[in-house]
Amino acid sequence: MQETIARYRSVRARTAELAAPLSQEDCCVQSMPDASPVKWHLAHTTWFFETFILERREAGFRAFHPAFRVLFNSYYNGVGDKHPRPQRGLLTRPSLDEVLAYREQVDRRMLRLLEQRQDDGDLAALVETGLQHEQQHQELILTDVKHLLSMNPLLPAYSTNAMTPAPPAQPLAWQEYDATLAAIGHEGDAFCFDNELPRHRQFLEPFAIASRLVSNAEFLAFVEAGGYREPSLWLSEGWDWARANGLHHPLYWRQEDGRWSEFTLHGEQPLDPHRPAAHLSFFEADAYARWAGARLPTEGEWELAAAGVRDHGRPALHPPGGGREGLSQCFGQVWQWTGSSYAAYPGYRPQEGALGEYNGKFMSNQYVLRGSSCATPEGHARITYRNFFPSGARWQFTGLRLARSLQKK
Amino acid sequence: MQETIARYRSVRARTAELAAPLSQEDCCVQSMPDASPVKWHLAHTTWFFETFILERREAGFRAFHPAFRVLFNSYYNGVGDKHPRPQRGLLTRPSLDEVLAYREQVDRRMLRLLEQRQDDGDLAALVETGLQHEQQHQELILTDVKHLLSMNPLLPAYSTNAMTPAPPAQPLAWQEYDATLAAIGHEGDAFCFDNELPRHRQFLEPFAIASRLVSNAEFLAFVEAGGYREPSLWLSEGWDWARANGLHHPLYWRQEDGRWSEFTLHGEQPLDPHRPAAHLSFFEADAYARWAGARLPTEGEWELAAAGVRDHGRPALHPPGGGREGLSQCFGQVWQWTGSSYAAYPGYRPQEGALGEYNGKFMSNQYVLRGSSCATPEGHARITYRNFFPSGARWQFTGLRLARSLQKK
Amino acid sequence: MQETIARYRSVRARTAELAAPLSQEDCCVQSMPDASPVKWHLAHTTWFFETFILERREAGFRAFHPAFRVLFNSYYNGVGDKHPRPQRGLLTRPSLDEVLAYREQVDRRMLRLLEQRQDDGDLAALVETGLQHEQQHQELILTDVKHLLSMNPLLPAYSTNAMTPAPPAQPLAWQEYDATLAAIGHEGDAFCFDNELPRHRQFLEPFAIASRLVSNAEFLAFVEAGGYREPSLWLSEGWDWARANGLHHPLYWRQEDGRWSEFTLHGEQPLDPHRPAAHLSFFEADAYARWAGARLPTEGEWELAAAGVRDHGRPALHPPGGGREGLSQCFGQVWQWTGSSYAAYPGYRPQEGALGEYNGKFMSNQYVLRGSSCATPEGHARITYRNFFPSGARWQFTGLRLARSLQKK
Amino acid sequence: MQETIARYRSVRARTAELAAPLSQEDCCVQSMPDASPVKWHLAHTTWFFETFILERREAGFRAFHPAFRVLFNSYYNGVGDKHPRPQRGLLTRPSLDEVLAYREQVDRRMLRLLEQRQDDGDLAALVETGLQHEQQHQELILTDVKHLLSMNPLLPAYSTNAMTPAPPAQPLAWQEYDATLAAIGHEGDAFCFDNELPRHRQFLEPFAIASRLVSNAEFLAFVEAGGYREPSLWLSEGWDWARANGLHHPLYWRQEDGRWSEFTLHGEQPLDPHRPAAHLSFFEADAYARWAGARLPTEGEWELAAAGVRDHGRPALHPPGGGREGLSQCFGQVWQWTGSSYAAYPGYRPQEGALGEYNGKFMSNQYVLRGSSCATPEGHARITYRNFFPSGARWQFTGLRLARSLQKK
Repeated sequence: MQETIARYRSVRARTAELAAPLSQEDCCVQSMPDASPVKWHLAHTTWFFETFILERREAGFRAFHPAFRVLFNSYYNGVGDKHPRPQRGLLTRPSLDEVLAYREQVDRRMLRLLEQRQDDGDLAALVETGLQHEQQHQELILTDVKHLLSMNPLLPAYSTNAMTPAPPAQPLAWQEYDATLAAIGHEGDAFCFDNELPRHRQFLEPFAIASRLVSNAEFLAFVEAGGYREPSLWLSEGWDWARANGLHHPLYWRQEDGRWSEFTLHGEQPLDPHRPAAHLSFFEADAYARWAGARLPTEGEWELAAAGVRDHGRPALHPPGGGREGLSQCFGQVWQWTGSSYAAYPGYRPQEGALGEYNGKFMSNQYVLRGSSCATPEGHARITYRNFFPSGARWQFTGLRLARSLQKK
Repeated sequence: MQETIARYRSVRARTAELAAPLSQEDCCVQSMPDASPVKWHLAHTTWFFETFILERREAGFRAFHPAFRVLFNSYYNGVGDKHPRPQRGLLTRPSLDEVLAYREQVDRRMLRLLEQRQDDGDLAALVETGLQHEQQHQELILTDVKHLLSMNPLLPAYSTNAMTPAPPAQPLAWQEYDATLAAIGHEGDAFCFDNELPRHRQFLEPFAIASRLVSNAEFLAFVEAGGYREPSLWLSEGWDWARANGLHHPLYWRQEDGRWSEFTLHGEQPLDPHRPAAHLSFFEADAYARWAGARLPTEGEWELAAAGVRDHGRPALHPPGGGREGLSQCFGQVWQWTGSSYAAYPGYRPQEGALGEYNGKFMSNQYVLRGSSCATPEGHARITYRNFFPSGARWQFTGLRLARSLQKK
Repeated sequence: MQETIARYRSVRARTAELAAPLSQEDCCVQSMPDASPVKWHLAHTTWFFETFILERREAGFRAFHPAFRVLFNSYYNGVGDKHPRPQRGLLTRPSLDEVLAYREQVDRRMLRLLEQRQDDGDLAALVETGLQHEQQHQELILTDVKHLLSMNPLLPAYSTNAMTPAPPAQPLAWQEYDATLAAIGHEGDAFCFDNELPRHRQFLEPFAIASRLVSNAEFLAFVEAGGYREPSLWLSEGWDWARANGLHHPLYWRQEDGRWSEFTLHGEQPLDPHRPAAHLSFFEADAYARWAGARLPTEGEWELAAAGVRDHGRPALHPPGGGREGLSQCFGQVWQWTGSSYAAYPGYRPQEGALGEYNGKFMSNQYVLRGSSCATPEGHARITYRNFFPSGARWQFTGLRLARSLQKK
Repeated sequence: MQETIARYRSVRARTAELAAPLSQEDCCVQSMPDASPVKWHLAHTTWFFETFILERREAGFRAFHPAFRVLFNSYYNGVGDKHPRPQRGLLTRPSLDEVLAYREQVDRRMLRLLEQRQDDGDLAALVETGLQHEQQHQELILTDVKHLLSMNPLLPAYSTNAMTPAPPAQPLAWQEYDATLAAIGHEGDAFCFDNELPRHRQFLEPFAIASRLVSNAEFLAFVEAGGYREPSLWLSEGWDWARANGLHHPLYWRQEDGRWSEFTLHGEQPLDPHRPAAHLSFFEADAYARWAGARLPTEGEWELAAAGVRDHGRPALHPPGGGREGLSQCFGQVWQWTGSSYAAYPGYRPQEGALGEYNGKFMSNQYVLRGSSCATPEGHARITYRNFFPSGARWQFTGLRLARSLQKK
């Protein structure tokens, strides 16, 4: 349990650190229904521990504030009412200070409880779920605030530190795989989400996968070749989506006087040709792949190929680029769209109880992303991790790695 | 000019006072496209002086911040680009502190300019327009923040002071008027907006007008008699509007366990039967009048009847009720919907220059309100004042006074 | 009553004549929620007689078809349920033939009833209302089918007859009027709608009014001078409306290879500079007037000026142009937007009973049009007639006549 | 080629037969953007032969009507412009008679061409694609016209023939399958669509599949147990969809006085407990399965299980019910939702040329349905057939068959 306690302290502290450069105002506003205010993330992750641990296990439990039970419930129908998602940004009260006090009180009570229950393995497992959950919101804090700042004509920077230059991109190579019956899904006792289970078999026909991600230089070539104007490159739905939104390039890109720049958490920067292309939707990733005579990998292919890769690096505010020879850039750059719709593995069972709503109910009309991004917290990524977003989502650090089917021999 | 200087100081200070009870977060958020953040009001009123006075008259003018020219332009196409209205709430930068510094610097420069131009009557007139403009925004600060707080399930109060109890409503009497050729519109040298001019003649057929406003008790009787469920009481468009929005009572009213309460700037309060009904749309006011066998007055009738009435009282956060015998409650309670569509008076000419966009371009599909409300700043109301809102607007302090046509004798 | 009977026969026959050039398909489809299928017009006008006359006065009344009571009720809440307006075009049954049979049966029963009640003045008055109502729908049949045909890339003509050439437009002259107390509204025993009553006094300040309508040549000059790109010419709401709809010229106009053409009921035709500009919204009419240094007349001004004018001509499928010296083109060309919002005259009382819904409930956010159009049936126009449409409506034959305020002497 | 010619004659004649009971009006109207008018189906299937065969192979080709090239192009960007889909119902011209003449002329030219090219295997293959395409539209004619008629309060019947009574449903049994490496996809030379290829291997973990479809009686039990009111049974997106659309039962069901009925092509009928539940969306099918402790099969599971089943029966206007022991009701009842998102098989290549737009570009955010329905034309179904619709589509004959994962042994 001491390890759990240490980890609890460190993860919780990290969340507060992420909010530290932001003003009360920055933390309060919601820039679109898909995003949440930073203050809401701070409160909701706390609500998670209060609701799923303290309420069920603390003697003489009393809620910090009765209204917070509803205000900071994200989507758990089993737990009760929820404040409407698009109205999260209207909550100027509780103030940021009150939310920080909420965090502090719940932390105190959580740590007391953990000290008292040294041998409670179930509790440790629940805490781990809560910390993994909090790490997911750490990534969202960065992507949500990036979107908010990007909506401001002043283009303010989250961090005024200089961005580390990216090394030149490696030449793109294709890794080939024969047909195989692959074992897919999480194995072992370490933490994973229910959607990574059960480990099962998938038959993969022969394929090749790119050794690195598609770079800004490559994606720019697609843009400049008229990729956004040629319907035959797009899924029908993607074409309609791009037309309806008047899109001609990735989110956060801007062209002025013939020069391309990109809005980042370090402010607006010249577009770096060597970094991986980021903030692509599934539709854009798919169109690029078709233009390149390739396709997106399935999640099984990705998981098979990434076996043994450990290239996480340290979290950063922008994809750092770089990478070794062989398969690289699996982790710590951008999430990688796969061609796999988010669905249950055969034999999937949602977690028992209210946490059963965590993953399973979102298994429709979303696509799986694999790997991790520069904004993914340290220690959070896993080779079996299944991230998922709808096909038009662009505000996450999302990019792509190409794949191809090979002829059966 | 010393009077102008004193008035400048006092009006500008009043705006800051109104924002004082609010946090940075309260000042930043926009609760709906029709409302603006308090911080935006603070900045826009300052932009008005910077743009229409300093820029044109200050030697060696330099903008406080070039981007503010666009960010805080409300709707003046003649002045240049505008930040989109529904995105005013996304501006977490500049911070509230920077906006207050903006106010301070512009005030300093304005006062220096005024001291230098003691005899410049044109300048004094422009300053007066700016101050009248600022007073309009003072009222909006209160109504916009009321709407914002009402969207928060915690129902926070703008002021924790107790609300003064309302005296019993006077019995309703009808003031009768014979047919007459009335002179309508502003007269004399004191300030007025261009839409109050020119003074002109309107022929009024015989009518009667109610001595006081419709009270909460009276409007509640309409609600409880099923007024919101009977289409024959409503304009066709009003009926569709009420259905589409699922309305059964005025904005800010709530019924729980058979008791009615009302959200106010003092927090939620029991519905006081004696105060004037507030936060009614034109459609609700019109439906009530039809139910009561009456109609809304025209603006000409209102102006004729209110001649000589001086019952402004002191500004308050909620309609105080009360009033003398005879025609009363003209000012300082709630704005009063008229049946008159907002249109130009015969011979109307918009102000010259960019300020010509102030009033004239809004003369379509809005209805005139007369009088003033509890939130109208001291000294701002006038008998010829023409306020105007679309027929579905409810978030202002808006109510009604009944009228009736009389038979010609 | 014999006159009523003759008029009944002739008006009812005229409706069928208007539908005669159309196929079953043309009569069934609804091109937008504002328009109705021709078949629906044929049925609804019949429903009007069945509901408001036969049901209340025929011995042993039995509805032609019980479901028609709902299907063909337009907006009379007092009469019962209504089929939703935007779904009128989904009614492929009853077939056109059944609707024509419905007309025939109701006509037979109406004529029998009228023969039986030779001296029933009330009945004759009700029939007259029904016939005036039917004439309104005759005009709508033409404008609704014009819109439908215009949506078809084949641009089919309603009539293949050649259009009569228009004589050159008269030079535009200004008729001046001194201030006066005018009597406005219907007088005498002849038929009028309730909204034309009571006759009352309006004081009019001095004004001038144009001797003829704005022509296509004049409106084209506005288009080519960039009128649709200059916000200062437009009402704020009109500017937003034109932007949102991407408008650069009047409805039915098209420019190809530098030549302008106009879709008409005779098919697409070269734009004729001499005919009055048609299919303008209130917003476009208002913008043109501002560009021309003028304004729209009020309805009082129009009615005063048009006194004594009798220039109806014969109905046609397109505005014929032409006209004498002096004030002309009042009738039979295009309806003329006024600056007057549609509102009750002082002392207005809606007709008793269900027909009270005919006019009064539409008195909000619409503007009055005066005169009549080429599509107005013979004998239907009146100097006191108040037509009304929302400010964005363009599919009627609507144009404008300029006015100006004059200095008081 | 004689076989092709015979088949051409018979399929083309069948389309006209389906339209025969309908009036011109029935054939012209479009009841929602997802559906098309029958007349459009008649024309578009003809356009397909004209565009993909005559234009490319007929000597001295001349289009029947140049405008038809655009009007009746569904979604082939490679072929040129398209008339906007939601406006298909506005085409009252060409008339139904003209479209029938278009069919006749193209048929004459097609038959002449086929007679001339007796040995042209490519041509025969193209014709087969055109006929399969036409058969797909035959099914859509029935489902689209069913939707149109259902929107009419008169609830008119497409066919006045009595519906054949359904035999009692078989008891539900579970067919179990061990883990296996299954060969999935089309094999052999017979026609299939490109999306059924290439045949490839899928590893299936152990599963069980229901011997028959979910019946009306079973689905009614779900409805009456409050299935539409319990969020834990639904995908998150499905729950929002059902709330937003106010759904409480399947499309075409209606409850009156405690009795349930169902709108059919034979008119409204009492809900038959023995027939398969129809007109379910993916969301409803998924929710039912969860309630029943089961899940939807994957398309691989379905294809494996259905191997060898031949229970097509004769097409009908409503699911006939019935079926033998063992796995039954695979074909000729309702399409069966699978849990598989519509995606490319490994190694998938779209057909060459413009027909490459037929299937591939729709591979996002849709779910695969397997089997066939009562409305599927004779000879059109195949065990490898992949039908697909978005998760909210309900107007097709769509139902479900349950499946379950089994423990690995």
